Amino acid sequence: MSLVVVGSIAFDSVRTPFGERERMLGGSAVHFALAASFFSDVRVVGPVGDDFGEAEYAVLHARAIDTSDVEHVPGGQTFHWRGRYEYDLNTAHTEDTQLGVFGGFEPKLSDESRAAGMLFLANIQPELQRAVRAQCDRARLVGLDSMNLWIETARDSLLQAIAEVDLVFMNDAEVRMVTEQPNLVRAARQLLGVGPRAVVAKQGEYGAALFTGDRFFSLPAYPLETVVDPTGAGDSFAGGFMGYMASRPEGAPDDEDELRRAMTYGSVLASFNVEGFGTERMERLEREDIARRYEEFRSITALAEVPSA
Amino acid sequence: MSLVVVGSIAFDSVRTPFGERERMLGGSAVHFALAASFFSDVRVVGPVGDDFGEAEYAVLHARAIDTSDVEHVPGGQTFHWRGRYEYDLNTAHTEDTQLGVFGGFEPKLSDESRAAGMLFLANIQPELQRAVRAQCDRARLVGLDSMNLWIETARDSLLQAIAEVDLVFMNDAEVRMVTEQPNLVRAARQLLGVGPRAVVAKQGEYGAALFTGDRFFSLPAYPLETVVDPTGAGDSFAGGFMGYMASRPEGAPDDEDELRRAMTYGSVLASFNVEGFGTERMERLEREDIARRYEEFRSITALAEVPSA
Repeated sequence: MSLVVVGSIAFDSVRTPFGERERMLGGSAVHFALAASFFSDVRVVGPVGDDFGEAEYAVLHARAIDTSDVEHVPGGQTFHWRGRYEYDLNTAHTEDTQLGVFGGFEPKLSDESRAAGMLFLANIQPELQRAVRAQCDRARLVGLDSMNLWIETARDSLLQAIAEVDLVFMNDAEVRMVTEQPNLVRAARQLLGVGPRAVVAKQGEYGAALFTGDRFFSLPAYPLETVVDPTGAGDSFAGGFMGYMASRPEGAPDDEDELRRAMTYGSVLASFNVEGFGTERMERLEREDIARRYEEFRSITALAEVPSA
Repeated sequence: MSLVVVGSIAFDSVRTPFGERERMLGGSAVHFALAASFFSDVRVVGPVGDDFGEAEYAVLHARAIDTSDVEHVPGGQTFHWRGRYEYDLNTAHTEDTQLGVFGGFEPKLSDESRAAGMLFLANIQPELQRAVRAQCDRARLVGLDSMNLWIETARDSLLQAIAEVDLVFMNDAEVRMVTEQPNLVRAARQLLGVGPRAVVAKQGEYGAALFTGDRFFSLPAYPLETVVDPTGAGDSFAGGFMGYMASRPEGAPDDEDELRRAMTYGSVLASFNVEGFGTERMERLEREDIARRYEEFRSITALAEVPSA
């Protein structure tokens, strides 16, 4: 099943305790697409400027990502984010944001993208998410991410967007914030009441929790001794999750086992993403690395039965 | 195998968004002992004042906890803590602390306590922990908890105490703090290098992580919709953990499956503890409630194999 992602394509300049990089390829759609590309066909929809060239396309094409719907805006500049992380790597401090062509982004989907079986609406303005969702009326599984900015400035639109998708991926703090409910379990249940079939609460270094119907699943983050650059971890998570779902015969949105596997592939891809700056680690990732780490996740969460004696 | 806990016995006055209570029975040794009592014989060592009476003893005796080593200091007052929690329940704000007889506490262990097979050193001054540990030279498994106060004021003593025990239970922030290492995995490995066989990093609403040798295990917290009073959750966790270990034929400190079961019983007991104020929920807890919630933990963490297709 083909998978379309709509979101930002960016250059990121990042400083962490482990070094710094200028103008790396980044953006939510890029991190998502690279992760998802290990499982399914992926198409990227997003805007770039004159500064986006062959080297950047090559990273996407090396993973067979379809860039036909990457929109080149002549005379424009690609979205540029500059930020740094403190030594605990948990909080990104934005130093500069140049929206460039992303500021006036109006997603234009080709017929092929509109016909996709799965759609991921990365973190963009909720009304744009709704417009894209409406265009993809044949998508069997639609996921959405968002951020505190939209909760603060466009909460009603965001709740409408959430009502129109199947899967919500948000940080746990954002799940609490959008529902104004400090208890995560209640907050996620409240969000399920709005419409989606599953809510994934991303918890950073603590992992992620999945809420579906009256069920709950939780997975720790992979225990990394060195996190080099957390930028894009959440998008890689969603990419691994939705890419896996797209690889299944029916997209299997109501199969709890499949959703748990998808959570795990999401965690696996996010864990690799943060091992290098930008897309460095993802560019040399192999399918076998993913399979091995999936098994490690099974091992680190395995809980034995109560002994009979 | 009998289990001794040395720590505080207290009255807690607590205010949370769900109500308030004056002078409830509390303290680290009390919360620990109640949790552990569902698995093994427990003896409590700690000081009380003239205000500690039959009603308080009755709570412990109802769970068959041995109070012979509870030291009554004539003319003294029992440790009294007053605090409140904000609506997210994650941070305790201390409003008043009256150490009372706990201020001059010098643990005195009976011969029976000194002969115990297992020992838990709840959060007290590290040199006191070391003195008690030295007295219990037949204990096959010794656990320890601590807090930021001792990291700040007695770090060297605390590291010596850690070197002399088998199991360390600390909040993840404290594991990072005592090792001055922001990455939890590195911090825990560093602490293992000091001597203990296992490090348990408690992560509050996110659960707990277990580090042993080169292995890692993580368990989420039970997904509660209502947390009434988090006071004593960490002590209940340690009590469930060590109580379970004490119930096993050999104390089984090097059996990874047993340690993971102990983690789960710790999480189960902590989850019940926070469902009521003080010891309210623990006083009416049944062994069947524990068994049922253990199975729920197995269910919420179960991760299926990769499908063959």
